[in-house]
Amino acid sequence: MTVSIRSFTKRGPGIVFIVSAPSGAGKTTLTRKVLSNCPDMSLSVSCTTRAPRAGEIPGKDYHFVSEAVFKRMLAAGEFAEWAEVHGKLYGTPRRLLERQLRRGRDVLLDIDVQGARQIKQHFLSAVSIFVLPPSLDELRRRLAARGTDARKTIEQRWRNARHEIQEIQGYDYFILNRDVKEAVRRLAAIIAAERLKVCRYIPKQK
Amino acid sequence: MTVSIRSFTKRGPGIVFIVSAPSGAGKTTLTRKVLSNCPDMSLSVSCTTRAPRAGEIPGKDYHFVSEAVFKRMLAAGEFAEWAEVHGKLYGTPRRLLERQLRRGRDVLLDIDVQGARQIKQHFLSAVSIFVLPPSLDELRRRLAARGTDARKTIEQRWRNARHEIQEIQGYDYFILNRDVKEAVRRLAAIIAAERLKVCRYIPKQK
Repeated sequence: MTVSIRSFTKRGPGIVFIVSAPSGAGKTTLTRKVLSNCPDMSLSVSCTTRAPRAGEIPGKDYHFVSEAVFKRMLAAGEFAEWAEVHGKLYGTPRRLLERQLRRGRDVLLDIDVQGARQIKQHFLSAVSIFVLPPSLDELRRRLAARGTDARKTIEQRWRNARHEIQEIQGYDYFILNRDVKEAVRRLAAIIAAERLKVCRYIPKQK
Repeated sequence: MTVSIRSFTKRGPGIVFIVSAPSGAGKTTLTRKVLSNCPDMSLSVSCTTRAPRAGEIPGKDYHFVSEAVFKRMLAAGEFAEWAEVHGKLYGTPRRLLERQLRRGRDVLLDIDVQGARQIKQHFLSAVSIFVLPPSLDELRRRLAARGTDARKTIEQRWRNARHEIQEIQGYDYFILNRDVKEAVRRLAAIIAAERLKVCRYIPKQK
């Protein structure tokens, strides 16, 4: 196959970027900041059966749906991935995601470890990033400091977090979130680098 | 295997970054600029049998050696890679490179496509980056504008460049060098992202 410089000016389908983290690692702040500097990247808005938190905007942060609606969508195969987290259901609508990728648009998925596994199986070139808190002590402090959650909920999130961190072994990249500005720079670097992979422009040769 | 957050604060051996490009793509300017912002990365200084160009400092840009010395080093297995380019010999001294990697220091190798192939075979986790000129027309213009080279040399570099570009198929990343500042940002992003790969901190699990 003959390669021309021009081959590197038009890329194929968009890239799926998966960002996962235990509660309290600072994932939402991080992804929102990167997206605001990344006009050529879309955020996939998940459906969820949990209630909106203060400040969350329906259709922007989540599509808030009833359990009945969620289960109907699930049965109809409308989710690219779904998961139950802390007793609530979350899912990524498949159609919009696939349409954006076909148009060459990159999409960021802010999803949990169960969902990440499903996406990796279906989108082989998806890039997965795990956000870590600076330490377990700091994670515990952050979970407690939220104030909005009951003691029991905090304990459950804390136990889940310690299990979820083990899942990092299946991820491509990690970001240790000590300092938000530095973490934003790192996520932006991963996105920029992945867009420069030769195999995204021309088929892999050995 | 149990993973702790602490696993991600100490990395294993250093990473080899290979940067290759046809003459005139702007590789030297690019790598020197990135290195000046990257105190934790060393440049591997190659040995060469070609004469120093104006402004080149022995021991910093190259180790300038005679053909006899180069061939003695080659026979003694002192090169991690070597190549003949435009009739001159170039080689990467093996010992210093290996010592730096063992100490966890990343090393940038500014080498040609033949050398890159040899390094990739011996350092399996090496990262390779190919710098492309914005277009073939622009490359030809830049080669001619150098002024220091004879017409015959320019023609030879131009023919080689067109062949070398085909070798990009074996590289991990590409950088289209339209604007130096943007190219520097891209190379820095690739370096930053590769340092955040989970597999460089803990063994790969499936």
